Amino acid sequence: MEKKSFEILDVTLRDGSHSMSHAFTPQQVRETARGLDEAGVRYFEVSHGDGLGGSSLQYGLSTHDELKLIEIAADECKQAEVSVLLIPGIGVKGDLQDAVKAGAKMVRVATHVTEADVAAQHIALGRELGLKTVGFLMMSHMASVEKIVEQAKLFESYGAEVIYVTDSAGYMLPQDVTNRISALKQSVGCEIGFHGHNNLSMAMANTVAAVEAGATFIDGSLRALGAGSGNTQTEVMVAVLDRLGYQTGIDFYKIMDVANDVVAKYMPRPQEITGSSLIMGYSGVYSSFLLHTQVAAKRFGVDERDILVELGRIKAIGGQEDLIYDVAQRLAVQI
Amino acid sequence: MEKKSFEILDVTLRDGSHSMSHAFTPQQVRETARGLDEAGVRYFEVSHGDGLGGSSLQYGLSTHDELKLIEIAADECKQAEVSVLLIPGIGVKGDLQDAVKAGAKMVRVATHVTEADVAAQHIALGRELGLKTVGFLMMSHMASVEKIVEQAKLFESYGAEVIYVTDSAGYMLPQDVTNRISALKQSVGCEIGFHGHNNLSMAMANTVAAVEAGATFIDGSLRALGAGSGNTQTEVMVAVLDRLGYQTGIDFYKIMDVANDVVAKYMPRPQEITGSSLIMGYSGVYSSFLLHTQVAAKRFGVDERDILVELGRIKAIGGQEDLIYDVAQRLAVQI
Repeated sequence: MEKKSFEILDVTLRDGSHSMSHAFTPQQVRETARGLDEAGVRYFEVSHGDGLGGSSLQYGLSTHDELKLIEIAADECKQAEVSVLLIPGIGVKGDLQDAVKAGAKMVRVATHVTEADVAAQHIALGRELGLKTVGFLMMSHMASVEKIVEQAKLFESYGAEVIYVTDSAGYMLPQDVTNRISALKQSVGCEIGFHGHNNLSMAMANTVAAVEAGATFIDGSLRALGAGSGNTQTEVMVAVLDRLGYQTGIDFYKIMDVANDVVAKYMPRPQEITGSSLIMGYSGVYSSFLLHTQVAAKRFGVDERDILVELGRIKAIGGQEDLIYDVAQRLAVQI
Repeated sequence: MEKKSFEILDVTLRDGSHSMSHAFTPQQVRETARGLDEAGVRYFEVSHGDGLGGSSLQYGLSTHDELKLIEIAADECKQAEVSVLLIPGIGVKGDLQDAVKAGAKMVRVATHVTEADVAAQHIALGRELGLKTVGFLMMSHMASVEKIVEQAKLFESYGAEVIYVTDSAGYMLPQDVTNRISALKQSVGCEIGFHGHNNLSMAMANTVAAVEAGATFIDGSLRALGAGSGNTQTEVMVAVLDRLGYQTGIDFYKIMDVANDVVAKYMPRPQEITGSSLIMGYSGVYSSFLLHTQVAAKRFGVDERDILVELGRIKAIGGQEDLIYDVAQRLAVQI
């Protein structure tokens, strides 16, 4: 009985960039890419943590040119293909053209879950360049199922072949995933993906829920290396899906080897659920708020957790950092 | 709507003993106990990782007398009660009597899932001493649902008030938990508990499944401190159950504080899913096999993972360590 119906896309070399302070070396990328390819992973992503062009004072400077890293990774691929992340506004079209020259075969164009419309040109360019082209809806927990369906239809109309539900804050629980993926399966013709974070210790269960609801792309990272509490752990996902009777097409021992003999050796610290990552997952706000919140908490003498929970309640989004101080001031008055 | 229907039992100061190499200090126990009590946790466990009397060359010598640590913990309790673990054969009845003098109010008598009958006298003693008395079925994934029901009925006949399904190897998936807890709810009159490990990144999802199936006791540990990949993470569980609409009776910020300001400061390393813990969870064998397996793998020139997977397949249990060498030899011949 063949139950394989999805691809595992590994994001160690992109989401892991956050945990590595954007300092992946050519040697680390080469060994990780080789291991992923040999284990049978079909797609893996290489970019700055915030996507192509993310190397900047604002998002963190990369130690090594990401185009060079993409090239090194692509050179290691016997069967795998390299994906890149592109957040319009951080990366520009020229970045994508350069990435293709370096060997990228897939692009994931990422926007906030309510802002798919900023991605029309980038999706079109991805198709023009012959890439597997994906629309990536970040912070998907912040939108209703209806809104997500509407945004996915936009992505589809621009030419996206896969649409991702992305739990950027690690906020979702399995029922949230099931509701979103099921609705998308019924409403759009393209493939559906899921990208999870582990802030509430639910990344694996959410990923299983996504597969059961019909997702055909699921993301993971080796040793969970990624932003916040990290991602669904790729080598563990292979074990769990095997136990559930799915064919992942990935060699379990080989994927363990690259996780433990390569990635574990260079990651600066294990991924775990700390106080900060837990409160981000609980409140559903994005990690970029954390630093400002700590400053505001001190200035106004309030608990930073109260600020984050309130920001989650009022659905503050990236770019609204000034709201953090308004909320802190308001909470300080209430004390 | 009052949805509270369970107690969270924290095992940081018992299962965490494994990760601490049985070296908890009086100060660590005092601060952790105080934090748990202040956060509103009703029960928490203090013992050597392998239960009362576990301090030995075989199971690891404790740095500090566990009776002294139990006494310190009990002294900190304004509303909480201290539980102790007792594995018949490792601990003896005198150990339990001493623990009660030190302030213990609950005992969990633990046996392999098919060996509840060795616990009859210890359960009876627990009741005699006026303790909340629990039967704890270790390695519950190794027995069929029917067998677990049979063993639970034995525990109940001896006087156990709560019976635990214990996923010692972190092998179970949510459906495994649901099947076992549901069957017990239908078959025995006493309360049902669940104790999970995170080897397959499913401890939290399994715990939610247990609550949904009617478990009224669920275990966790702060920062997941415990054997293998650690336990269901207590402070995260409080967040997840709150999000699901349950009243845990535990103060979220206070439980975060003891996790992050106390436990995180003394734990020797973060709990994570390493290669060893993953293969234990995947194969379903107990962590005590690991060392012998590594020796046998070297001696016979086979992959230790193949040995563990085969041991899981033939359902080897603790005490059958000689089987490890038989399996390694057999696999070596097949190569």
